[in-house]
Amino acid sequence: MSTDQTPSADVDRIVADAAIASAEWKKTPSDARAAALVAVGDALDARADELVALAQHETHLAEARLRGELKRTTFQLRLFGEVLAEGSWLDARIDHADPEWPMGAPRPDLRRQLESIGPVLVFAASNFPFAFSVAGGDSASALAAGSAVVLKAHPGHPELSALTTRVVSEALAAAGAPPALFQTIFGTDAGVRALRASEIKAAAFTGSIAGGRALLDIANARDEPIPFFGELGSVNPVFVTRAAADARGEALAGDFLASVMGSAGQLCTKPGVLFVPEGAVAVERLTDASALPSAGPLLNDSIAQGFARSVARTRDHEGVAVAAAADDAGGTAPVVFRTTIDRVLADADALLAEMFGPAALVVEYADEADLIAVAGRLEGQLTATIIAEDGDEIAPTLIGALAQRAGRVLWNQWPTGVSVTWAQQHGGPYPATTAVGTTSVGTAAMGRFLRPVAYQGLPDHLLPDALKESNPLRIPRRVDGAMQLADR
Amino acid sequence: MSTDQTPSADVDRIVADAAIASAEWKKTPSDARAAALVAVGDALDARADELVALAQHETHLAEARLRGELKRTTFQLRLFGEVLAEGSWLDARIDHADPEWPMGAPRPDLRRQLESIGPVLVFAASNFPFAFSVAGGDSASALAAGSAVVLKAHPGHPELSALTTRVVSEALAAAGAPPALFQTIFGTDAGVRALRASEIKAAAFTGSIAGGRALLDIANARDEPIPFFGELGSVNPVFVTRAAADARGEALAGDFLASVMGSAGQLCTKPGVLFVPEGAVAVERLTDASALPSAGPLLNDSIAQGFARSVARTRDHEGVAVAAAADDAGGTAPVVFRTTIDRVLADADALLAEMFGPAALVVEYADEADLIAVAGRLEGQLTATIIAEDGDEIAPTLIGALAQRAGRVLWNQWPTGVSVTWAQQHGGPYPATTAVGTTSVGTAAMGRFLRPVAYQGLPDHLLPDALKESNPLRIPRRVDGAMQLADR
Repeated sequence: MSTDQTPSADVDRIVADAAIASAEWKKTPSDARAAALVAVGDALDARADELVALAQHETHLAEARLRGELKRTTFQLRLFGEVLAEGSWLDARIDHADPEWPMGAPRPDLRRQLESIGPVLVFAASNFPFAFSVAGGDSASALAAGSAVVLKAHPGHPELSALTTRVVSEALAAAGAPPALFQTIFGTDAGVRALRASEIKAAAFTGSIAGGRALLDIANARDEPIPFFGELGSVNPVFVTRAAADARGEALAGDFLASVMGSAGQLCTKPGVLFVPEGAVAVERLTDASALPSAGPLLNDSIAQGFARSVARTRDHEGVAVAAAADDAGGTAPVVFRTTIDRVLADADALLAEMFGPAALVVEYADEADLIAVAGRLEGQLTATIIAEDGDEIAPTLIGALAQRAGRVLWNQWPTGVSVTWAQQHGGPYPATTAVGTTSVGTAAMGRFLRPVAYQGLPDHLLPDALKESNPLRIPRRVDGAMQLADR
Repeated sequence: MSTDQTPSADVDRIVADAAIASAEWKKTPSDARAAALVAVGDALDARADELVALAQHETHLAEARLRGELKRTTFQLRLFGEVLAEGSWLDARIDHADPEWPMGAPRPDLRRQLESIGPVLVFAASNFPFAFSVAGGDSASALAAGSAVVLKAHPGHPELSALTTRVVSEALAAAGAPPALFQTIFGTDAGVRALRASEIKAAAFTGSIAGGRALLDIANARDEPIPFFGELGSVNPVFVTRAAADARGEALAGDFLASVMGSAGQLCTKPGVLFVPEGAVAVERLTDASALPSAGPLLNDSIAQGFARSVARTRDHEGVAVAAAADDAGGTAPVVFRTTIDRVLADADALLAEMFGPAALVVEYADEADLIAVAGRLEGQLTATIIAEDGDEIAPTLIGALAQRAGRVLWNQWPTGVSVTWAQQHGGPYPATTAVGTTSVGTAAMGRFLRPVAYQGLPDHLLPDALKESNPLRIPRRVDGAMQLADR
């Protein structure tokens, strides 16, 4: 398939075909949808060697990392298959007619389930060429929800995008999915045109604040505004209490650096800022340039330029010093900065801004209570981490303050390596996410592409299967207000 | 309390106070929040005579309707109390650590619940001075979710707004709620200023498409965009099959008129368009002016002017005739128009536009299959209704097509009189709602004001109660992917 910019006429045809495919796919029973997702996972695993080699070539990421990422990607497809079978995703609710309903008027028979929102436009990310790209979490959760997907490929890995698209499309076709259920487009203009198309009913995006906000504004300005699920940026602050710094200073400095520098710092959950007590041994350790990895290529030129700009801004900021820097030919080498908490409180917008790449800022504090003040100044975050001892008195207050600003609060663990589970939450207040109540990782990610529909007074044979009285799908349902487990 | 425009300085203080109250209220245990909601309901019921008399004076709505609406309003407050106690609203999920997680990396201990989004700005509506105003569904669901409420009063019933605010505030204070948990502001400028305030984290609105879209655009343009839950407009089409028209023509015409003309047509679920077979007896019946109620005052001058404009537009549309009209002094009398389905298919935007007030359009069709074509042309709707016989072959296709465009699909019932239940859905694709996946009526309305937070690796004693291992709140939870009922 061509990786050139998709012509406008082709985009128009693609979104029209997606609308037809989406209506068909929504009607496809859950078990058939689940089987198709599993088939896609299997097909990707079968082509792992070829896919990983191409990804390595196009992204400069390490083979082990890419193999792990592909495994995560295919696991995710199969997990959504399990979610479909379990059935809670439908949020099925049945209220039987009740002539004595205390509202003051008889209650009609009302039955409600979640249904596909319609065709979804997914903007692939550069930093996860599998897990947040063609067959990544957004595509998997949209397909699971019963939506057709139009995938806007990331220019950072065009050939991998084309190959993955072929593998996905062939697997879906073999599993009996409708034609045009999954289609890929290339180029910024094509992405914007699709975002404006009336057939598209939701969009998902992972990337920069500037790019994401521009797309969000386009989605909002449509005649029919549509939900835009953007995961834009996060500095993922880490707060180390004095007791923890005293007890584990050396080890935590090493763990922090490992989390910062993994994948050359190009992770949305990279811990970009570390708050530590003045004079802690961890600070000493973080001024050791020999602990830093050596410079390597970043994902692409655009990322490298953005990283160099953000590093320069931090370096030039009053009161910021370089704590340690690796040998730097092109301005993109690993670097650790240091400053004080007073500086951060005086200019939080500048100093708590994301540097996407191998860099971090170490912030020294004298008074532990200032951590609460900083928490109150944070923009929305994907994660916030506390490194503390069990008896730390500040813990409950700090947890409460961070839970107001972050989607995930960690305790003595590191935020990178986002697990795909039922309880995962990857999203927070803006700018971490453009839709604060949603997640792009974990089984709840499906909810973004669903909308509720209530049916009032329908004869049983005309109801969707999930809402028929006999519960033929054997799924958990809320009946007259009470949760009932599946009868399997 | 003054019902004059709230000065800017007061708005600024009010939103700041709301932020403090919201943080406090979020930490208040669910049972105490539930008790406060019940106390508000009881206090409103105790003042029913005074409230209803004031509402009658300010809105011209009938006493029986207002008494019913107040009962619905206080029922709703108590129902959210039940929802808080039951605990499913938290969507509590626990994934225990699993070193063998098939994703390829060990799964950490992850626990997720829903928490208040923060202070909510509620724009009251004119047409439900109780149920969608000061103490209405938006306020009730926001308070239940743990959010402080800033209520922008509707100018159509200022004195009632002031009195209701006093009753609500006194009841909340007596129940031990934080000061400033519920505050009311007056005036368009004050509402816009509050909507732009960084302390406000979500807004809810019921009203016109023009007004709602303007506010939506303001919410979207903020530095930190916030969710704007607007319920804007809907024509709520009714589709009568030939078999139903033949079997029940006379009765359905009467039922349709009753649904259209109730509350002088000033309901968001008023069925504004009726599709019937050419020459059906129902059409005959709907040309009988003596079946129409006589003209009465509408809610306020603004509504009356808007209604007169929309009626004039329909009257002047090519191919539209007056089927029946009540005596009309001021241009706001009940009226029924008629046209053909070809006209509607040729200019759906104009002929399927809402006329908010006592008016409806009867559309005659020759070919039942054209109903499917019309369904595909609908904008987003709150409701769509099918009047049919059980054996009608078109039913499954028509239900499927309407479920794509409406939040609630009815069968042989009428859309007005929205029941407050667990399975209710009051919201649909734009412009019915600005946030397609949400409802403003029913227990799911709380979800609008909640956001998920995941806790990773926290010691049990630092976890929120809903996520502690021993399940001290005795609520339903999803544990390692499997739903578990409350152990009560």
